[in-house]
Amino acid sequence: MTKQQLFENIRKKGSFLCVGLDTDLKKIPQHLLKEEDPIFAFNKAIIDATADLCVAYKPNLAFYESLGVQGWIAFEKTVKYIKENYPDQFIIADAKRGDIGNTSEMYARSFFDHLDIDSVTVAPYMGEDSVKPFLIYPEKWVIVLALTSNKGSKDFQFMEDVNGERLFEKVLKTTQNWATEDQMMYVVGATQGQMFEDIRKFAPNHFLLVPGVGAQGGSLQEVVKYGMNSTCGLLVNSSRQIIYADTTERFAEAAREESMKLQQEMNELLVANGLK
Amino acid sequence: MTKQQLFENIRKKGSFLCVGLDTDLKKIPQHLLKEEDPIFAFNKAIIDATADLCVAYKPNLAFYESLGVQGWIAFEKTVKYIKENYPDQFIIADAKRGDIGNTSEMYARSFFDHLDIDSVTVAPYMGEDSVKPFLIYPEKWVIVLALTSNKGSKDFQFMEDVNGERLFEKVLKTTQNWATEDQMMYVVGATQGQMFEDIRKFAPNHFLLVPGVGAQGGSLQEVVKYGMNSTCGLLVNSSRQIIYADTTERFAEAAREESMKLQQEMNELLVANGLK
Repeated sequence: MTKQQLFENIRKKGSFLCVGLDTDLKKIPQHLLKEEDPIFAFNKAIIDATADLCVAYKPNLAFYESLGVQGWIAFEKTVKYIKENYPDQFIIADAKRGDIGNTSEMYARSFFDHLDIDSVTVAPYMGEDSVKPFLIYPEKWVIVLALTSNKGSKDFQFMEDVNGERLFEKVLKTTQNWATEDQMMYVVGATQGQMFEDIRKFAPNHFLLVPGVGAQGGSLQEVVKYGMNSTCGLLVNSSRQIIYADTTERFAEAAREESMKLQQEMNELLVANGLK
Repeated sequence: MTKQQLFENIRKKGSFLCVGLDTDLKKIPQHLLKEEDPIFAFNKAIIDATADLCVAYKPNLAFYESLGVQGWIAFEKTVKYIKENYPDQFIIADAKRGDIGNTSEMYARSFFDHLDIDSVTVAPYMGEDSVKPFLIYPEKWVIVLALTSNKGSKDFQFMEDVNGERLFEKVLKTTQNWATEDQMMYVVGATQGQMFEDIRKFAPNHFLLVPGVGAQGGSLQEVVKYGMNSTCGLLVNSSRQIIYADTTERFAEAAREESMKLQQEMNELLVANGLK
């Protein structure tokens, strides 16, 4: 998917919502456990209930891998289901991968070739040759961790060099030499609030994938205030707040209601910013 | 496995070799492709041919994931085969994972609970809460990326703060507050040569997992000169040099020969350093 197509989807739906599919057998409604593939059954219901309200889905690989082979089957079925039924959705494999060149090549093959997913999250620690193999696929995206939403982001990401440049800034600047804004996004946690102002100094035009709204406490208003640009430039992810809004048989309906609240707020913000 | 047990295995076998199972369908002998599970057939043959010469196996997850579900099946079968037939081997899931707390918890569950693997490689970028969930499992290890073997290691890992402390040093120092040397190791690339001297200033007693000997050009002599400590403190990985030593029907025999060369050199180095 191109940047322009993504922006058009956002305008059309009045939404820059990404639904995080952090599907955990311990948290899904218990009546689903009798299904042949409870994880996929849950995802399918969530997707059908939210697809007109969001522009992206982000399955987090950890949740699938924790179940081994069964989890991978559910992951692949989920991706296939989205692609067949909602081809305008931007799919993010939240995998936070990154390894030496020949290994990153294998990860890229896994997500882009084998599964035809739109994007994958990548950790920057190993540098250029760990990221570049993902960039040879046209219209596929790399989403680099810049400033994450968790407490541990303070351990290394704010380290300053002699010129006062922080690690996350260095990541933003350096990685821009590797790809354009048409193939690269950044993860910036919603919990970082005003830091979005700083981020936009270094990456004014890039899309940002923003986790941490909802369960982790980040504010949508603040993210938009400091982070929205002329092509929206934001994919705001919500996982637990949506998919576990209710744990009874009406879980999908509840997920839809939560998504709709966010979509309506997003639509207003798009209108207020002259993007719709 | 405890640190003491690992050291005893090293002394017993006169080897601190880790065989990297970077198994790629495009590189394995073509006659194996007619097997039901070529990846597992290849791994099994390599393992049987090398198990008395090494103390660890390191399947790199990327290579398995690139095949999707079939790859995961081969990965799980490989782990199970090693555990059942060679229970003294230290198994490393080379996955370079790391995510927010609740997600890292899922990865830990995958590798330590579901598969009972000994250790997993972890990227430090997201900080403490991304690593801690791996540490609640007794006798299971986290192997943190410190200084990697690839060219891209120069992009961020050598960044210096105002006191001249480099990012990889900060990683070594900070992470030592999270776990003892009985549960934490570091990845330090063999291509970094003399840097081992620096590493040992900050982590004198930890085990280091050392990739990059062989195909990537690192020297075993140099690694030992600067990196060996009183409990050996080194697991030196070789992947391509061993597993793709030959691509005919005698691939396993050739892998054994390559492993034996390394083991004999390692044995001499252990003797020379008074550890055997």
